Amino acid sequence: MEIRSKSLSELDNQTLFELEQYLENARNNFLGYPVSKDFDYSEINHFLKYPINNLGDPFENCTYKVQTHELEREVVGFFAKLFRANPKDYWGYVTNGGSESNLYGLYLARELYPKAMVYYSESTHYSVRKNIHLLNIPSIVIRSQENGEIDYTDFENTVKMNRHKPAIVLTTFGTTMKEAKDDVSKIRDILKNLAIQDSYIHCDAALSGSYGAFMEPRLPFDFKDGADSISISGHKFIGSPIPCGVIITKRSNRDRISKGISYTGSLDTTITGSRNGHCPLFLWYTLKKLGVDGLKNRYLHSLEVAEYCEKRLKDIGIMAWRNPNSITVVFPKIADEIKLKWQLATERDISHVICMPNVTKEQIDLFINDIENCIENPEELLEFGF
Amino acid sequence: MEIRSKSLSELDNQTLFELEQYLENARNNFLGYPVSKDFDYSEINHFLKYPINNLGDPFENCTYKVQTHELEREVVGFFAKLFRANPKDYWGYVTNGGSESNLYGLYLARELYPKAMVYYSESTHYSVRKNIHLLNIPSIVIRSQENGEIDYTDFENTVKMNRHKPAIVLTTFGTTMKEAKDDVSKIRDILKNLAIQDSYIHCDAALSGSYGAFMEPRLPFDFKDGADSISISGHKFIGSPIPCGVIITKRSNRDRISKGISYTGSLDTTITGSRNGHCPLFLWYTLKKLGVDGLKNRYLHSLEVAEYCEKRLKDIGIMAWRNPNSITVVFPKIADEIKLKWQLATERDISHVICMPNVTKEQIDLFINDIENCIENPEELLEFGF
Repeated sequence: MEIRSKSLSELDNQTLFELEQYLENARNNFLGYPVSKDFDYSEINHFLKYPINNLGDPFENCTYKVQTHELEREVVGFFAKLFRANPKDYWGYVTNGGSESNLYGLYLARELYPKAMVYYSESTHYSVRKNIHLLNIPSIVIRSQENGEIDYTDFENTVKMNRHKPAIVLTTFGTTMKEAKDDVSKIRDILKNLAIQDSYIHCDAALSGSYGAFMEPRLPFDFKDGADSISISGHKFIGSPIPCGVIITKRSNRDRISKGISYTGSLDTTITGSRNGHCPLFLWYTLKKLGVDGLKNRYLHSLEVAEYCEKRLKDIGIMAWRNPNSITVVFPKIADEIKLKWQLATERDISHVICMPNVTKEQIDLFINDIENCIENPEELLEFGF
Repeated sequence: MEIRSKSLSELDNQTLFELEQYLENARNNFLGYPVSKDFDYSEINHFLKYPINNLGDPFENCTYKVQTHELEREVVGFFAKLFRANPKDYWGYVTNGGSESNLYGLYLARELYPKAMVYYSESTHYSVRKNIHLLNIPSIVIRSQENGEIDYTDFENTVKMNRHKPAIVLTTFGTTMKEAKDDVSKIRDILKNLAIQDSYIHCDAALSGSYGAFMEPRLPFDFKDGADSISISGHKFIGSPIPCGVIITKRSNRDRISKGISYTGSLDTTITGSRNGHCPLFLWYTLKKLGVDGLKNRYLHSLEVAEYCEKRLKDIGIMAWRNPNSITVVFPKIADEIKLKWQLATERDISHVICMPNVTKEQIDLFINDIENCIENPEELLEFGF
């Protein structure tokens, strides 16, 4: 229809122009969010002309054909393999991000064990509390150790007092602030020792799941280690213009909750009905370009920059530290001016830099310079334009 | 990093090429899904290079700056006005689609009235049942009338037996199969007559909400008519490559459930934490191009094509009909071959054509031709290549 071809007013064009300048600036200066900026999807941008909708279950046929289910299945298969899932018993889909992935894992767990108690540590991502609240399941928050990892003794003692209930445990593989990793094997052992037979472990591996398979020494988090479902983010380590995630579960579990819908001809197994079909395409594209080796190299690069960042901070007298195999450098809360300029997330008394694959040693140098300037001449900060 | 620049293998390029041909074909031949295909965002495709994330509440500041919150607020404001919300008491955000929007409305309602009973008609979208299940709220399904509208007598009698409980009513403004519209004013009156003081009406206006304001005569569905929250889809009547939606609520209600999160510096008021920031940009762009008048013209065009389609079907002896002001033409279940070719959604004994703004009278003629051929020469269908 011709009404679509009306062009934008000058004012609206100005708004768009300013928005782009603003986004460009904002993108260039952040070190505090776990978001890869080095993606380039220009080769497939033109797919934006299709109203793609991955409605329903990616492993089922659907009446609506403008979809990328095949690519989505490849993405799911890639991670299922990386997470050592049983090749004959995995399922999953590309979600809108961590919140939906974790909601799915917890939903599946609740459907299997409606009378269960949920356990998660105080370092767990804030969205989990909201998800548990949405799902209306009772839960107990477990203490964290100083490094952000769940306190296994507190966990064991707490479960001990609730042995009459099935246990749903939400572990985190890479916490928000300290990139701490809960040990799924230890959790599994504790449950076993207490003879709790009805249990479910969902591993929120939003950040570190994408490179967990490459860690040396390995840290237990995957299906072989005892997880029943694992979620990762797509816009973090892999990189995507649009937030997205992947949830991998056991097919046998998802089978128990599936219901058919005649309207779409598919199964109602996903949290959202209409689903983004471009993100599976983005993820597929990157995974094809990288392969397992490329993904591993991305991690090794990040690790090297993180080691460098930690060292540089220590050299100027800042008490920086990292969890094992972590690309996140933690240090005491920093001046507001630095925090604002580099968009550093800060919680209570700590800040962090996350050395995503796009972060270079040169950027770390600039960041260190800013801190040094700030320490020596606090009044100069005003010149930064804040 | 250079690992990004590795190019795709020939095989992968072939996959992409075939995917595009497949999507192009699939897009060109559907009349059965409420998806506008006439959008053109080529002017703003390049925004895909930014990792936009509208993390958290669009009306609050956030540490992460690569966002389009300002445009999102304009989109929310546009619909709040169209839906006659109190200009001083509205709030909302752009969601990932109908499922999330309805989940939000029901979540808000449950938080306000934790002991409530939910009522919805049997014609309600399947995702609502799943949402209610997720939220763990008791509910009762109300009968539908033949035209798909809620049966007000059944509703009244059912509520009568549950007067001791707050009532949450999920009304639909444009049901999936018949585009039937529940009358929010009538629902409000029934609740009032039964002296139920604690009540909440969420209106699922996924399809018809975008043009509800232009109907003559008006059909009651908005805030002035008695709704407490309204959800619409963005990828349906307006058109977006990626499924999305808008939820509009009363700010005073959302204030009651908001919680602060130091990590992002925002409020945890949205279902998903990390949020798509490109869809608000798409919606903003279209609304700026269309304006209220353009949106109205789109509706009038659709209405005209729907009237034409109904007439053409009747002319060849098919018992087609439409609900008042509806752009959906309903008729008895059609041969599988036609259903497949035009990707018609079918439920029990009916099929439908939805005259989205991109549908033309010429396309309707082609569709009618196919049916005529099919009636006269059923064996010819094989030649279509199915």
